[in-house]
Amino acid sequence: MAPLDLVPRTNQASIAVKFSALRALMAAHQLDSYLVPSADEHLNEYLPEAKQRRAWVSGFTGSAGELLVGREQAWLFVDSRYHEQADLEVDPSLVQVVKLGLDEQKTLIETLEMLGDTATEANTVHRLGFDPFTLAIAQFQTYEKQLAGVEPLPGAELVDQIRTQTPWVESDPIPPYGNSKLFQLPDELTGETIKQKLTRVREAMQKAKTDLLPIAKLDQVAWLFNLRGQDIPYNPVFIAYAIVTLEQAFLFTNLARIEPEVRQAIADQVTLLPYEQYPETLKTLSQANKLRVLLDPQGITLGTYHLLVEDRQDLARSKVKIVEKANPIEGMKARKNAVELEQMQAANLKASRAKTCTLKWICDQLDQDRTLQERRLSELDVAQAIAQFYRQEAGYQGLSFNTIAAAGTNSSIVHYGTPSPDTILQPGEFLLLDSGAQYWGGTTDDTRTLIVGDPTPEQIQRYTEVLKAHINCAGQRFPKGTSGIQLDGIARSDLWLSGLDYGHGTGHGVGAFLNVHEGPNGISKRAQALLEPGMITSIEPGFYQPGWGGIRIENLYVVKDLSEAKDSQTNAAITAWYGFEPLTYIPFEHRLIDWNRLEPRQQKWLAHYNEAVVEKLAPTLDSSEAEWLKEACNLDQHEFDRI
Amino acid sequence: MAPLDLVPRTNQASIAVKFSALRALMAAHQLDSYLVPSADEHLNEYLPEAKQRRAWVSGFTGSAGELLVGREQAWLFVDSRYHEQADLEVDPSLVQVVKLGLDEQKTLIETLEMLGDTATEANTVHRLGFDPFTLAIAQFQTYEKQLAGVEPLPGAELVDQIRTQTPWVESDPIPPYGNSKLFQLPDELTGETIKQKLTRVREAMQKAKTDLLPIAKLDQVAWLFNLRGQDIPYNPVFIAYAIVTLEQAFLFTNLARIEPEVRQAIADQVTLLPYEQYPETLKTLSQANKLRVLLDPQGITLGTYHLLVEDRQDLARSKVKIVEKANPIEGMKARKNAVELEQMQAANLKASRAKTCTLKWICDQLDQDRTLQERRLSELDVAQAIAQFYRQEAGYQGLSFNTIAAAGTNSSIVHYGTPSPDTILQPGEFLLLDSGAQYWGGTTDDTRTLIVGDPTPEQIQRYTEVLKAHINCAGQRFPKGTSGIQLDGIARSDLWLSGLDYGHGTGHGVGAFLNVHEGPNGISKRAQALLEPGMITSIEPGFYQPGWGGIRIENLYVVKDLSEAKDSQTNAAITAWYGFEPLTYIPFEHRLIDWNRLEPRQQKWLAHYNEAVVEKLAPTLDSSEAEWLKEACNLDQHEFDRI
Repeated sequence: MAPLDLVPRTNQASIAVKFSALRALMAAHQLDSYLVPSADEHLNEYLPEAKQRRAWVSGFTGSAGELLVGREQAWLFVDSRYHEQADLEVDPSLVQVVKLGLDEQKTLIETLEMLGDTATEANTVHRLGFDPFTLAIAQFQTYEKQLAGVEPLPGAELVDQIRTQTPWVESDPIPPYGNSKLFQLPDELTGETIKQKLTRVREAMQKAKTDLLPIAKLDQVAWLFNLRGQDIPYNPVFIAYAIVTLEQAFLFTNLARIEPEVRQAIADQVTLLPYEQYPETLKTLSQANKLRVLLDPQGITLGTYHLLVEDRQDLARSKVKIVEKANPIEGMKARKNAVELEQMQAANLKASRAKTCTLKWICDQLDQDRTLQERRLSELDVAQAIAQFYRQEAGYQGLSFNTIAAAGTNSSIVHYGTPSPDTILQPGEFLLLDSGAQYWGGTTDDTRTLIVGDPTPEQIQRYTEVLKAHINCAGQRFPKGTSGIQLDGIARSDLWLSGLDYGHGTGHGVGAFLNVHEGPNGISKRAQALLEPGMITSIEPGFYQPGWGGIRIENLYVVKDLSEAKDSQTNAAITAWYGFEPLTYIPFEHRLIDWNRLEPRQQKWLAHYNEAVVEKLAPTLDSSEAEWLKEACNLDQHEFDRI
Repeated sequence: MAPLDLVPRTNQASIAVKFSALRALMAAHQLDSYLVPSADEHLNEYLPEAKQRRAWVSGFTGSAGELLVGREQAWLFVDSRYHEQADLEVDPSLVQVVKLGLDEQKTLIETLEMLGDTATEANTVHRLGFDPFTLAIAQFQTYEKQLAGVEPLPGAELVDQIRTQTPWVESDPIPPYGNSKLFQLPDELTGETIKQKLTRVREAMQKAKTDLLPIAKLDQVAWLFNLRGQDIPYNPVFIAYAIVTLEQAFLFTNLARIEPEVRQAIADQVTLLPYEQYPETLKTLSQANKLRVLLDPQGITLGTYHLLVEDRQDLARSKVKIVEKANPIEGMKARKNAVELEQMQAANLKASRAKTCTLKWICDQLDQDRTLQERRLSELDVAQAIAQFYRQEAGYQGLSFNTIAAAGTNSSIVHYGTPSPDTILQPGEFLLLDSGAQYWGGTTDDTRTLIVGDPTPEQIQRYTEVLKAHINCAGQRFPKGTSGIQLDGIARSDLWLSGLDYGHGTGHGVGAFLNVHEGPNGISKRAQALLEPGMITSIEPGFYQPGWGGIRIENLYVVKDLSEAKDSQTNAAITAWYGFEPLTYIPFEHRLIDWNRLEPRQQKWLAHYNEAVVEKLAPTLDSSEAEWLKEACNLDQHEFDRI
């Protein structure tokens, strides 16, 4: 799970001036409103500062949330993760925070509908401006289909225009970006050469009867060319476009930062061109006769669409045929090969050891505090400790997201991202520690929730219910063809019967030394992708109650084909059975587990998991750590005997 | 669950002649292939014979399956329900049966892709003809977006053209249709007047900023005007279009069959026009300035789209604005009001009594057979018995689908629709009885699986697992916002852990004295609709193994708001908890239940259900039936005491 940085409200006067400048530009373009989405040209979740247009113009820094600026009003649409943060960061006299999910809150579409309606009543049309390079094709199509009375007008990037005006360009210049060094991953780390990947991609393009594939998503580019960079916080990617044709491949990026060795190593597979040449090259290539272009409506912007087809109304007369389909790289990247899986196992074992050592360190600190009769361990201490333990493992590249170390009632804030030196761990309260690292070859993400001092029966009961949800999902066997939506229901089933639930998804895909959030797989209400062997997903059910606290229990798992372990009951219709194998091995908080609330199969899963944790970690720990671990994994022996 | 009629293979010579005639017409229209979908102008699942074009031209009579006729080849695309039947009905020398879901079988889209590819290689384009009134807008859009090298050419209905040619029109004339008498439902049965319904529909249209709503689906028309007919087998609907504007409502149907009383009763709400005037009226209405039309891409055909916008390329210049959204009637119809629920409860209680009496009657017959030492009870006897018991209940209108009475290995054929006088119930074999009726005010659907003679441990184990799947779904509490996909996973969870599964969905929506299959709700991999109070769904997990037999256990349930029963654990994020309340009260096969395989909460659910069955049915049965029922519901008392 990836959190965010909570930033104090930006100078309100400066925001008001920016809004005035934006509205002046809107008037010049005869626009009634202007949309500033969260994403950039590469549909990034995390953006380089230079592309954080919404944050710059509104002050809101969350990783998701769209801004609509009208002639007099402005709206910021945020989901439940950001309800609180948006209120803290945004000036209500300038921007109305729309808290999506709450009753009576109009979505962006509904707000546009309302504006369109007002325009229609006035016998006119509402002119909606936006930069087509900040909007996925699918998002634009939704607007186009559903909105009456609103005319979407893709056009210039107005926020960039203001940012480059005096006084801003002087006092607050757009920081440079896309300058990090590129490094090449050896085949021993990726398990597949660029050439092999290009061959597979071209096969998929041909299967889709297409000749050309433009690529905008940075993790797709990084995966395809076995390259990594550091242009974006936490994500080891670099700003680039790519184009693959049946004969050629182009990589468009800042060439100045590429070392000659790297250039040489990839030169026979890919033509390197400056980032700025993407539009022109795509246009030139699209002049070919009867060109068929594969565009992923979720993965590429309307801007690219317009480079290919200038007037969408003339689509039928256009020389270019657009085929809208998921980018085949997305699925290939998600299904890790054997080498990537080894790397992910190794990286997650390192992270598991680091987290386990942190947990022991916290226990030791708390014991010491108790001895000294003072309380002094803070959230920030915990966040620094886990970072320190991560760093001690070989191949450390950085965190995979900003650590969430939330004590007491802060643990109920799902994306709490500001571990404080002033928030001290208190007896009777939870500590929720959600963290991950990038290692050379692998990405990690896991969460443990601890109790400081003695737990209450209610804390034990709720923790145990969340653990049951985790086990129900992690222990599920499922046939080929199962989606993440079905598994989401399975994860929540027992929890719902106990009257509990959580507002976020159950799991997200994780990249191999790539983004900690990746598609297409996930486990949630919206995760339509079918789970396939080699896909990696988090399982992270939780429970949150403001003022009481929050619980989350998260491991990473890989989807395995269990067909060899198939039992005789299999019916003919099932071609294969799949299940989850853990990548994360960290003890759960045994003092919060009520063994008797677990069903026998849940007890069995937990006993096996605990055994595996000891088996995997103990040999590499020092003796005091190993002893602590065994105790943490050693549930009541009497109960064990029953299994 | 709705079955089909298995019809012996149609005269092959006659099919070959029809194909020749179709190909001659295709050549005249310069078409490379012609698509004959399963559906008609109203996107019906069951069609009047006059509209069964695919069945007429190919011989395949299933309720789903698309036919693509190429210049030399032809393909019939059928899902797993029809793999077997298609082979029986279709001549393989004329039509290749494509069994969707099996490996290596190309879907319709993939086949078209292949044809498009061949055309592209030959430097031409594949011209695909079809009748735009037989294709939902959404289906057409998928083709348009995904197919390269194929030019979709909406045009004339070629199968109708052949059917009206000599010799066919003489030897096999198109039967008349749309002649059944219309009857009006009193408000005491519907709970809502036409006027009230129109008001709600217009509110939804205004919310979507639209002025006009064309309606093609027959159950939507029937619901809106509180009318029923008998134009279609099993579905109490009538062939009609409707158009609702903010001021007017039009009903287009065969007016000759409407009695003056009915006309008069609805005259102040709706303008009656002949069926044939739909296109012309829609065109006239669409001349209004700035008209905004709500079109449901899943619920209306491309034909209607073209009536509004002649050239889709000129959409931007068209006076009409199309807003693509689900037809609001679909959701309103699904959320039954209190009166409809009472009617559905009453109807399902009647059907439950009829099925229970049939089960006892079967037991009695088998006992008698045993006494006489002969075996003579056939599938057809069972189908006739249930029909007889249904008929004895007040307000009987007909079956809601063709009864499935499948003995022995026939029980593994999910849609077995030909109960045979020659297939005798044998000891040690299952009988699967899936049936339903239409009563004045309510529609029913339920399935019980019995064992004849003594069950094997394997039969008991598998039946118990299917029952657990049923109970897990039926007993689930879930928050507002839960979809049928999540519940599908929950239903299968235990079954998957036992290595079992079933190839069909877990449940479908059911209309109130309407179609036994209705949208938008369901419980399956594809059922994205959120479950809401008042929606009715079947829950019908199963297990099927060809050569061994099949099990299905089906009840209908209504979604209830449990908020009053909310327990103290509820967290703030949950606005409401929902659950299922049974409409069906029929004993399960107690001789196939292994009580010890049930978890305590499953035992509890079953005990309460059995209690309710006795409570609801026993008072209305004669004493021998009541005694039999109590025994069927009386599981081992010792076990009951444990609960």
